[in-house]
Amino acid sequence: MPHTLVLLRHGQSDWNQRNLFTGWVDVRLSDLGRAEAKRAGELLVEQGVLPEVLHTSVLTRAIQTADIALEEADRLWIDVRRSWRLNERHYGALQGLDKAETLEKYGQEQFMLWRRSFDTPPPPIADDSEWSQVGDPRYANLSDAEMPRTECLKDVIARMLPYWESDIMPDLRDGKTVLVTAHGNSLRALVKHLDGISDDDIAELNIPTGIPLVYELGEDFMPAKPGEYLDPEAAAAGAAAVAAQGRK
Amino acid sequence: MPHTLVLLRHGQSDWNQRNLFTGWVDVRLSDLGRAEAKRAGELLVEQGVLPEVLHTSVLTRAIQTADIALEEADRLWIDVRRSWRLNERHYGALQGLDKAETLEKYGQEQFMLWRRSFDTPPPPIADDSEWSQVGDPRYANLSDAEMPRTECLKDVIARMLPYWESDIMPDLRDGKTVLVTAHGNSLRALVKHLDGISDDDIAELNIPTGIPLVYELGEDFMPAKPGEYLDPEAAAAGAAAVAAQGRK
Repeated sequence: MPHTLVLLRHGQSDWNQRNLFTGWVDVRLSDLGRAEAKRAGELLVEQGVLPEVLHTSVLTRAIQTADIALEEADRLWIDVRRSWRLNERHYGALQGLDKAETLEKYGQEQFMLWRRSFDTPPPPIADDSEWSQVGDPRYANLSDAEMPRTECLKDVIARMLPYWESDIMPDLRDGKTVLVTAHGNSLRALVKHLDGISDDDIAELNIPTGIPLVYELGEDFMPAKPGEYLDPEAAAAGAAAVAAQGRK
Repeated sequence: MPHTLVLLRHGQSDWNQRNLFTGWVDVRLSDLGRAEAKRAGELLVEQGVLPEVLHTSVLTRAIQTADIALEEADRLWIDVRRSWRLNERHYGALQGLDKAETLEKYGQEQFMLWRRSFDTPPPPIADDSEWSQVGDPRYANLSDAEMPRTECLKDVIARMLPYWESDIMPDLRDGKTVLVTAHGNSLRALVKHLDGISDDDIAELNIPTGIPLVYELGEDFMPAKPGEYLDPEAAAAGAAAVAAQGRK
């Protein structure tokens, strides 16, 4: 029996709209983001993809996206699990900065390195920064070593994959259709694993917001073919928009 | 260390508004119900009651209430557990009927017996009724014997208390502030247990909608004193309104 995995990137947030680096800062969905989430729920219904368990990050914008989509699909009642391991990449000292200003100040090369380098994180954020999450009660169970001050994609993979194995795979093994509602980089980390994308090529992968991406996985929890967006045309346009982010 | 338990009855639903018996029929919150849930979240913030884990029924109106309240309190990120054992009382063949018409047709005595008798359930609903939940995927894991066709309060206690012991008490034992967002009768069942209310006296207990009720529990998971509503004045008015339901 194949296992069905549905990935959903949260819709536009207030800070996406304002073009700020967000990372672990807990901003909310914009009105457009709410509309995207509703559309995601409609796509699930239209195409008969019915999640039976939800995994989300502990960031509000991902949780709102899941709740709005599932309300639309009349499936708010499914089991829910949350983990910081599905959070967006921690953007370090860039959190709270304007993307366009950062691009102008540091130049295209440094900007793209911070945005898309596999293993070069931005400078760490200071614990006393207004955009630090140190002390946030939702992370009270993390050891100091687990609590990131900045992350590159390699770091995200290192903290996300253990959760994939320990918590998501068992739900798939139980035969459940699993919805994972998360973020651009935590989902890129998962797609890199599933599609066997190289460290170099992952820089080119952009996941659009608000469009469910469905994988059928085999007994080894790997796909025989690439995942399919429930609205491929909108997905292509959305991915191009993500790639253009930060440019004026 | 005392354990903090917060009980919250969902706000007005579309069917409350239309004065229909609801039970397990999965209706949604009305606009007033959404406003009540938001107010509940404001009360949690104002009085510094910060839930660390949420338990809900699998009915949408309770889940919506919890999500709206927690969004208001900026705590959507807490862990969530759901169980059919926290569902509203199954109202049997009364589900979908108008309360005022039922009162007129059957008379005050029979009406109050169905609404408030401890151990007399309404007639069972037929499995092929449009308001039956047999076949609903959210109950797929229930045995046929567990799946109710009608319930009295005694039945609700019998299926709710095992969940209190198996799932809610362990979270309290872990030192977490537990929010239980549920229904008039599943919460009456829990309050009957906590406050040691007799089978006769429970008929007089009405729990208002949308106002958090906070208990401090001792090591035996029982309260030393009655629970306190976060807005006692509104709670008294709300309880009176519940008591008057069904009257024209």
